[in-house]
Amino acid sequence: MSLLVVGSVALDSIETPFGAVQDAVGGSATFFSAAASLFGPVQLVGVVGTDYPLERLDFLRARGVDLAGLEQEPGESFRWAGRYSLDLNSRDTLETRLGVFAEFRPRIPPAFRHAEWLFLGNIDPVLQLEVLEQVHAPQLIACDTMNFWIEGRHEALMRLLERVDLLLVNDGEARQLSGDHNLMRAARWIQRHGPSMVVVKKGEHGAMLFTRDFAFSAPAYPLEEVFAPTGAGDAFAGGFVGYLARAGVLDAPHLRRAMIYGSALGSFAVERFGLERLIDLQPDELQERVRHFRELTAFEDTMPLAAHA
Amino acid sequence: MSLLVVGSVALDSIETPFGAVQDAVGGSATFFSAAASLFGPVQLVGVVGTDYPLERLDFLRARGVDLAGLEQEPGESFRWAGRYSLDLNSRDTLETRLGVFAEFRPRIPPAFRHAEWLFLGNIDPVLQLEVLEQVHAPQLIACDTMNFWIEGRHEALMRLLERVDLLLVNDGEARQLSGDHNLMRAARWIQRHGPSMVVVKKGEHGAMLFTRDFAFSAPAYPLEEVFAPTGAGDAFAGGFVGYLARAGVLDAPHLRRAMIYGSALGSFAVERFGLERLIDLQPDELQERVRHFRELTAFEDTMPLAAHA
Repeated sequence: MSLLVVGSVALDSIETPFGAVQDAVGGSATFFSAAASLFGPVQLVGVVGTDYPLERLDFLRARGVDLAGLEQEPGESFRWAGRYSLDLNSRDTLETRLGVFAEFRPRIPPAFRHAEWLFLGNIDPVLQLEVLEQVHAPQLIACDTMNFWIEGRHEALMRLLERVDLLLVNDGEARQLSGDHNLMRAARWIQRHGPSMVVVKKGEHGAMLFTRDFAFSAPAYPLEEVFAPTGAGDAFAGGFVGYLARAGVLDAPHLRRAMIYGSALGSFAVERFGLERLIDLQPDELQERVRHFRELTAFEDTMPLAAHA
Repeated sequence: MSLLVVGSVALDSIETPFGAVQDAVGGSATFFSAAASLFGPVQLVGVVGTDYPLERLDFLRARGVDLAGLEQEPGESFRWAGRYSLDLNSRDTLETRLGVFAEFRPRIPPAFRHAEWLFLGNIDPVLQLEVLEQVHAPQLIACDTMNFWIEGRHEALMRLLERVDLLLVNDGEARQLSGDHNLMRAARWIQRHGPSMVVVKKGEHGAMLFTRDFAFSAPAYPLEEVFAPTGAGDAFAGGFVGYLARAGVLDAPHLRRAMIYGSALGSFAVERFGLERLIDLQPDELQERVRHFRELTAFEDTMPLAAHA
């Protein structure tokens, strides 16, 4: 498999009701790679400043993430600071310092340009389009976006969607993008504008996949302790695309399993701050959680109903 | 099977963004029976006023619902009027007129007292306890409640819970009752106070079952058009308990399937106003939807992960 991710590599400062962390390794490309590298090698393209503690990305390298596309530019790294509400369902951004990320123009190293699987992390859709100009016919182009781009870069985003196979968004973003509150209709709207597949992430309510042929619903893993939701969406994407890249097939059975692997990775991500839980996550722990997902949803078909008495 | 439901039989006036209906047949016992009678006979205990259009309950009788426990008292029937928000996720109560329901004291006819399956619809927990005094050792005692009783009849409700096997509540009620935002911990709290099983209904996000041995997650059926949510919770309960009563077994495979039958009945209920969709619902339509639920959630286990490249 050859799997390329383009996105942010950041330093996150997070406050939750359970504690706080300063300058933790974060960013969409980082979380994605940490999850996807459980399935096979990953190629990462991003940018950091001269202040970035690069040694803290060594665990990615050790897991087969090729950081040849991670540029280091003079200046500060992208920093985000946020505070979560008591129920962890909402958050306030305390500070966003783009630093070198403000001038980021993704340059895909020649060795990465034939990637068969591509994930465009949540960056300016203009840049996501620039990535597409540099790669050769991936088997799957998946991308993420956010409210900021839906509002401020609508035209570029719509041009991007025409060229994308799979859009992963959260429920609020799907509603905002389509202007439709009903998630099924929202997904159909998105499909009419390009992506044949849409994943709608619903946080503690799980995630749904809509393809042209079927819909699939994955529950959230019921956790007694959710520690910090940062990165869960990118870990989901890493599990989803990483699993598909490893399988090498895009049929219904594999897409269904990809939803479960994505959900499993997302559930691990929220168990601790930042990447903490993903760094030492072992393949057998992942398999065990996938088995739990099956127990959580499987039922046997079925006793026929007789006519009424 | 012998399945007894005690609850309200009402007239509902509902406004949604899609239309309005006046004095539609409603009430927890009515919705429950309409759903449960697809599985077998049901015994109903409730009260209506002299103004109630009893002939509009004929469809229940035709489906094997024994209305011998439905008393008719001098006075007005219980009327509820409400208006749903644009997204159908919230509603304002416009009017509640209890009428004869204000003085309701459930009297279980002798022929109903050996019911093996009992559902206590959402009424005053003091009355729910009075029902328990009149029945002989049902195999399953299930009950519903609401914010009004959690706040105003807390002590009686806690006494009731000690004697109940299964509590069905929505997510907000589970949180309110337990004082815990986390639904898994909320369910565990409820289990510590009596019911060995808890169903948490999450509306458009599906439902979860917690037993002492396992958790099960049922998705909501993805509908492009949700018409009116009234009665969905009672239809769910009717499908859940009705299926179990018919099966006659309370083991894990049947409880899982009961969750799907409940979810299916809930999904039909919201497709039209009030009971409209349930009245003419055919067993083969129900089976077809259960099959769809399986397609929506089933995935094959699983490709083992190799070590990283």
